[in-house]
Amino acid sequence: MIKKIFIIGTGLIGASTGLALRATGFSGEIVGFDASAHELATAQSSGAIDGFAHSRPEALDLARTAEVIVLAIPVLAVLDWSELLAPVLNEQQLLTDTGSAKLQIATAARRLFHQPGRAGFLPGHPMAGKESGGASHAEANLFRDAMWLFTPLEAAGAPPPLEAEWRTLVAGFGARTLDLDPTHHDELCAWVSHLPQMLSTALAALLEDTFGSDEKGRAEIAAIGGRALRETTRLGASPYSMWRDIALTNTQPLADTLLALEQRLQHLRENLRTPELREQFALANRFRSR
Amino acid sequence: MIKKIFIIGTGLIGASTGLALRATGFSGEIVGFDASAHELATAQSSGAIDGFAHSRPEALDLARTAEVIVLAIPVLAVLDWSELLAPVLNEQQLLTDTGSAKLQIATAARRLFHQPGRAGFLPGHPMAGKESGGASHAEANLFRDAMWLFTPLEAAGAPPPLEAEWRTLVAGFGARTLDLDPTHHDELCAWVSHLPQMLSTALAALLEDTFGSDEKGRAEIAAIGGRALRETTRLGASPYSMWRDIALTNTQPLADTLLALEQRLQHLRENLRTPELREQFALANRFRSR
Repeated sequence: MIKKIFIIGTGLIGASTGLALRATGFSGEIVGFDASAHELATAQSSGAIDGFAHSRPEALDLARTAEVIVLAIPVLAVLDWSELLAPVLNEQQLLTDTGSAKLQIATAARRLFHQPGRAGFLPGHPMAGKESGGASHAEANLFRDAMWLFTPLEAAGAPPPLEAEWRTLVAGFGARTLDLDPTHHDELCAWVSHLPQMLSTALAALLEDTFGSDEKGRAEIAAIGGRALRETTRLGASPYSMWRDIALTNTQPLADTLLALEQRLQHLRENLRTPELREQFALANRFRSR
Repeated sequence: MIKKIFIIGTGLIGASTGLALRATGFSGEIVGFDASAHELATAQSSGAIDGFAHSRPEALDLARTAEVIVLAIPVLAVLDWSELLAPVLNEQQLLTDTGSAKLQIATAARRLFHQPGRAGFLPGHPMAGKESGGASHAEANLFRDAMWLFTPLEAAGAPPPLEAEWRTLVAGFGARTLDLDPTHHDELCAWVSHLPQMLSTALAALLEDTFGSDEKGRAEIAAIGGRALRETTRLGASPYSMWRDIALTNTQPLADTLLALEQRLQHLRENLRTPELREQFALANRFRSR
């Protein structure tokens, strides 16, 4: 039933989706749009898309011709495009997205879609990425063994046929899928993804402030720092452009986990010389041994 | 000149040292001692040591017969063994260690060694390890491309011959070496090693407290958590036994870095919706791009 898929946003996630569709044997047409002509050209030359729209008006026209439109863009851009696409699409079409925070998207989708005369909307969130974005880093296997979450507007019951077909394609990427309530999704993702990101950004920013203008110190940090430092600061390379939207749209759950971590670090600091430190290591050991 | 090396503590670091000595062509005798008979047996069966002392009194006797004695044990145990060995060893011998915090060890060494009639002492710190310890995880290549730090008691001048020979053996392991002042060593290691450890322990302990008794939540965290969570909590598996000594002997530098990180996380939390977040990402990006 799906003959044409339109990917809006042909960066790392969008271009990888195109490549994964091809690798899994999807034989229909894949078209794209991106605000960056460079990303579009890279996605096309890698075979992630067959063709593309050259402007936003062209993109809105092209959207009318695809059964599935994938918004592979940051959360605020998903909200913007949802407003633009709602009056353009019809009941025979499905809009889906890959945004990292889902409550605001699901709320907007309920208002704009999922009603007579309007397209369906399946909020989605592939838990995959790299610290460097862009179509040039895309790969067909990006989603293999990764989790692709959905927060469907209708929690129970069989999904509409187009949605079922899209889910089958995603499963073909080698991704595992799980349906979650959007509020619960955002709380869980604050813990497993957004907090680790902010933690890594905080540590890397602190080290840069402490040693950035001290050439000898910088050289020593670089010489001495091993796997522990590399791994805990790796996400420090992540782009602000993507995380700004997550911070703006998942603020409270993220702030709650940050505060809890600040308090836990303070607790460790106040107990560096007491047996309570043993309890904290025991808890951490238990978490890692599960 | 070095014909016999005595490794006290044949866990991960000690047994790996024995294996690395063999791999690098050291043809003398390697003997060991460990409080755990199991670790000793494992180290011997892997070829890390040729023989061993069965008790502390036997170990003190054996120490008299080796040119180099390596204390591959936690920091407080290094301090204990230094007291025991100081009156037993003589000027023709070298004591060295692998403890992760160096100021207290260097201070004790200056008091107990490095004077007429007493053995030499070269405080050392290989920046290598795994989240699981024990002789069964030992490998000859553990120190390859890792940093093996020294905090020599005499900062300037050519090292005594035995010390120079030990340094050559360590270089033969494939390790890079760097000499540091012990106070500076402890501050740098608080940043690149001890802070990342406590951060990882704090995050893993917090997650265990939050989801440990919630079976559904635990399953969701396990299903959704990807590389970001794995890497930032990996060190949560580290053993308390080793880190207790580091927390006790490097308390102030570690507390200083912990407080700075708490403040930085609070700053991020208070700026999740302001342009200041961009500055923090820019700093972190700069640190990672160096």
